[in-house]
Amino acid sequence: MRKQSALSLSKLSLAAFASIVAALAVPDTVLAQAVRPPEVRFTTDEAFDAAGIPPYEGNHDEVYRHIEANIADHVKQLQRWVRQQSVSAQNRGIGEMAELVAGDLRQLGFKEVALVPTNGHPGVFGFYDAGAPRTLVIYMMYDVQPEETGWKVPAFDGALVDHDLGRVLMARGATNQKGPERAFLNAIDSIIRTRGKLPVNLLVVAEGEEELGSPNYPQVIDKYEERLKKAHGVYFPMNSQDGTGAVSLPLGVKGILVAELEAAGGAHGGPKNAEIHSSLKAIVDSPAWRLTQALATLTSSDGNTILVPGYYDAIRQPTEAEQRLANGMARASAGREAAMRKGLGVDRFIDELSGRDLLARLLFTTTININGIWSGYTGEGMKTILPHVARARLDSRLVPDQTPDEQLELIRKHLIARGFHDVAVRKISGYAPAQTSVETPIVAASISVFNKYGVTPSVAPRLAGSAPYYIFTDRLRLPMVIGGIGHGSGAHAPNEYMVIEPRPGSRIAGLADVEKFYVDFLYAFAAMK
Amino acid sequence: MRKQSALSLSKLSLAAFASIVAALAVPDTVLAQAVRPPEVRFTTDEAFDAAGIPPYEGNHDEVYRHIEANIADHVKQLQRWVRQQSVSAQNRGIGEMAELVAGDLRQLGFKEVALVPTNGHPGVFGFYDAGAPRTLVIYMMYDVQPEETGWKVPAFDGALVDHDLGRVLMARGATNQKGPERAFLNAIDSIIRTRGKLPVNLLVVAEGEEELGSPNYPQVIDKYEERLKKAHGVYFPMNSQDGTGAVSLPLGVKGILVAELEAAGGAHGGPKNAEIHSSLKAIVDSPAWRLTQALATLTSSDGNTILVPGYYDAIRQPTEAEQRLANGMARASAGREAAMRKGLGVDRFIDELSGRDLLARLLFTTTININGIWSGYTGEGMKTILPHVARARLDSRLVPDQTPDEQLELIRKHLIARGFHDVAVRKISGYAPAQTSVETPIVAASISVFNKYGVTPSVAPRLAGSAPYYIFTDRLRLPMVIGGIGHGSGAHAPNEYMVIEPRPGSRIAGLADVEKFYVDFLYAFAAMK
Repeated sequence: MRKQSALSLSKLSLAAFASIVAALAVPDTVLAQAVRPPEVRFTTDEAFDAAGIPPYEGNHDEVYRHIEANIADHVKQLQRWVRQQSVSAQNRGIGEMAELVAGDLRQLGFKEVALVPTNGHPGVFGFYDAGAPRTLVIYMMYDVQPEETGWKVPAFDGALVDHDLGRVLMARGATNQKGPERAFLNAIDSIIRTRGKLPVNLLVVAEGEEELGSPNYPQVIDKYEERLKKAHGVYFPMNSQDGTGAVSLPLGVKGILVAELEAAGGAHGGPKNAEIHSSLKAIVDSPAWRLTQALATLTSSDGNTILVPGYYDAIRQPTEAEQRLANGMARASAGREAAMRKGLGVDRFIDELSGRDLLARLLFTTTININGIWSGYTGEGMKTILPHVARARLDSRLVPDQTPDEQLELIRKHLIARGFHDVAVRKISGYAPAQTSVETPIVAASISVFNKYGVTPSVAPRLAGSAPYYIFTDRLRLPMVIGGIGHGSGAHAPNEYMVIEPRPGSRIAGLADVEKFYVDFLYAFAAMK
Repeated sequence: MRKQSALSLSKLSLAAFASIVAALAVPDTVLAQAVRPPEVRFTTDEAFDAAGIPPYEGNHDEVYRHIEANIADHVKQLQRWVRQQSVSAQNRGIGEMAELVAGDLRQLGFKEVALVPTNGHPGVFGFYDAGAPRTLVIYMMYDVQPEETGWKVPAFDGALVDHDLGRVLMARGATNQKGPERAFLNAIDSIIRTRGKLPVNLLVVAEGEEELGSPNYPQVIDKYEERLKKAHGVYFPMNSQDGTGAVSLPLGVKGILVAELEAAGGAHGGPKNAEIHSSLKAIVDSPAWRLTQALATLTSSDGNTILVPGYYDAIRQPTEAEQRLANGMARASAGREAAMRKGLGVDRFIDELSGRDLLARLLFTTTININGIWSGYTGEGMKTILPHVARARLDSRLVPDQTPDEQLELIRKHLIARGFHDVAVRKISGYAPAQTSVETPIVAASISVFNKYGVTPSVAPRLAGSAPYYIFTDRLRLPMVIGGIGHGSGAHAPNEYMVIEPRPGSRIAGLADVEKFYVDFLYAFAAMK
């Protein structure tokens, strides 16, 4: 028997259709090339130079010697922290880690320690009363990202591994953020054991939901707000050296909006209850296509320019002070793009950006990123279905003066204007950006200690990443500084590590120097005018 | 301290940018409304009516009584088949199921039975020599889809469940395809036990990869090609009654192309080795966005019209014979759209189609469907990453004269023309459509048996679904008929079932009648001119 297709048959008449398709292709292609995020305008080429601030002159030999003598135990303390899983996204080990942090604070001599219940994971509050005139708030996060595939060692073993850069602690949380946090507590421990007490009072306010976007951290602050407001600054321990030993000292962070887009079957069409056979696509709408089409309207075809009307409108141009910081960063990092790309595992940056342009795009612009997208059958082999639901998680990094709710509203309005009434937009979390001025004494104190260790920082107007520091800078109205010496990498990625013993000749600080930095910073803060 | 954002600052200049965005919005919106798949043209309103073919008059009482007397055991045989898992996508229970099929054939008296090795899961061949003048090829698939969430009973327990339609076997494979296949073997068993032998010779050629798109079925055919070509027709046992008892007898199937699209980091940009922190989206390209943008170019914004140039070109308009079949179907199914929607769990069909238009869209047009899409973190909570890879699985249902390789090439060319060199297109599997003419004697034999059971079929030019029947119709040049009475639903979905005992007054056949149909069909085939 022969197929009927062997008979002579006319083709479908497609002329009008083809011309519409052709018409579509043109503007889109042109746009892909023409559209770029709005330019960041520089009005000065002057550069801030942190080398102009004299090195910190204090000397705390007795404390340094205690650190050196106990460094093997100090490494074990870091391992103890990373071995305690605390994956906030999966509520894995959270209670245990909160108790571990609280217990360590008590053991160090914090007289007032409490777990702070929230609508989510608990916060940890601790007050160390040194009877000192100055009080420093210590921000901590005790949660970590879920482990991913691609790890060379188990993510929660706390393995010490030989690495190009020296001996490293390789574990989830090694650098983000347990390593530097516990190193900071090691430094406190050595001060107290040698000097009897700290030079400053400390208010620790730790959270277990940083990796979830800190949805309930305001509740931790609520309880202690009046006491916190009377402090003189906020500090967050961090490994600030990169793989070459260079330091960027960020004076702020971007805000963030995390939202979920969901397309599902409903009155508008598509399967409502469960997936159906994919042959029915001929007559049934597809939520997976609707989500894809809705998402595609958010950006240019290269995915790099946001096409949501007004999305860039709230961004203010950088101040002259911020421009000077960016100019200083650009000079300090000149020619290091290749190393940066290597570190990230990327062959090129968007638009082949380099130098100040690269920094400006990274620090002064907003983003919309797909964290995850999923629909239908994603297992082995194949399953020919028409899925009834499709979801994408987006995050948008926000710069002054963007706010998460306003940006979310722009996305919502845009999708409705483009006819995507059937695509639900849900806010998962979000907070505003934060900014501390370079003229603040705590910033000068921090820079002076960096200079003592021969690592003059490239002072950044902000991090490209996000943290809920608006709580400190806007709500408590405190200046905030972040980071010290030390190096780690792989946050939110496989094989996260922190360098413990750098290879000889390295500019990267080992754990002992990381801790000495924290000692000096506490004394410099105490001595600040 | 105050944020620097409190200072007076200029907004970014966005005029030119906004105008480009506005320009983009217009054509796309217009297109979403204007674009429809090419129309199917009808040149006749005449309808084929299967009632014009006289009912089969043969009577095989002794066999029917044997079926009635042994129906409890026959149900157990179906349960035995569905309890043996055989998920081809996950290589679960495949070897065991192949052995089970082979063992059953031997037990029935097939003298020649063999597992047929392929590059994938084995085929099963069986020859029953009745010394009869006519030989029928029996196509079988012994694999099933993976089970999904949403099952009321465990998918592989073989539970008998009370259902709106009566007592049903609820299990993966109950209707697709183990239920009707084992019912067919039950029918054979009853003939042999009462009459000593079958009225026809049988050549069983079963495969274990139908749900994977039958990539290696040609290898099963290769080994027996010359013997198979000498047969007189091909039959595939199937529950052809819908929930109301109506039967559609399809004379062909659509072909299929399954392809994977993958965007990943590389020389063109994006992270190459692993996901990176999502804040880097500001300067690093996103494979997830690239996949989304590439996919979005394939269809109109409603996801229902394919915008790949030329994708509809190879489709021939239906022949007059096919039009008459469609007209007959439309009359037989008039007013049943609401029941169809209810069965599928959808509130509306695309473009509110109904009647012949709905059938034409379902049977005479091609599709591109997203089976699954995945990138980044898709677990609980959130993870703010920029994923290094994003994938989508597409299937396209093909009608004459489309071929999978030509359609794939159109997609490939289109993506390159639109600048998506970085998006890889991989063929997973594919085969051409198949067609049998309504004038073939085996079709008339089949219709006569349906008419005997008072269920005159609505003869369909083809199924909207796909199966590798081109192997029979094009390669072996045999006519093929599919299906009998009986009802099941939920193929590729939760709570798949086959009706065993219909509720009183139902037009749906119970298992005993399903088996009697198969008995009569074998005798009708044997008697065919």
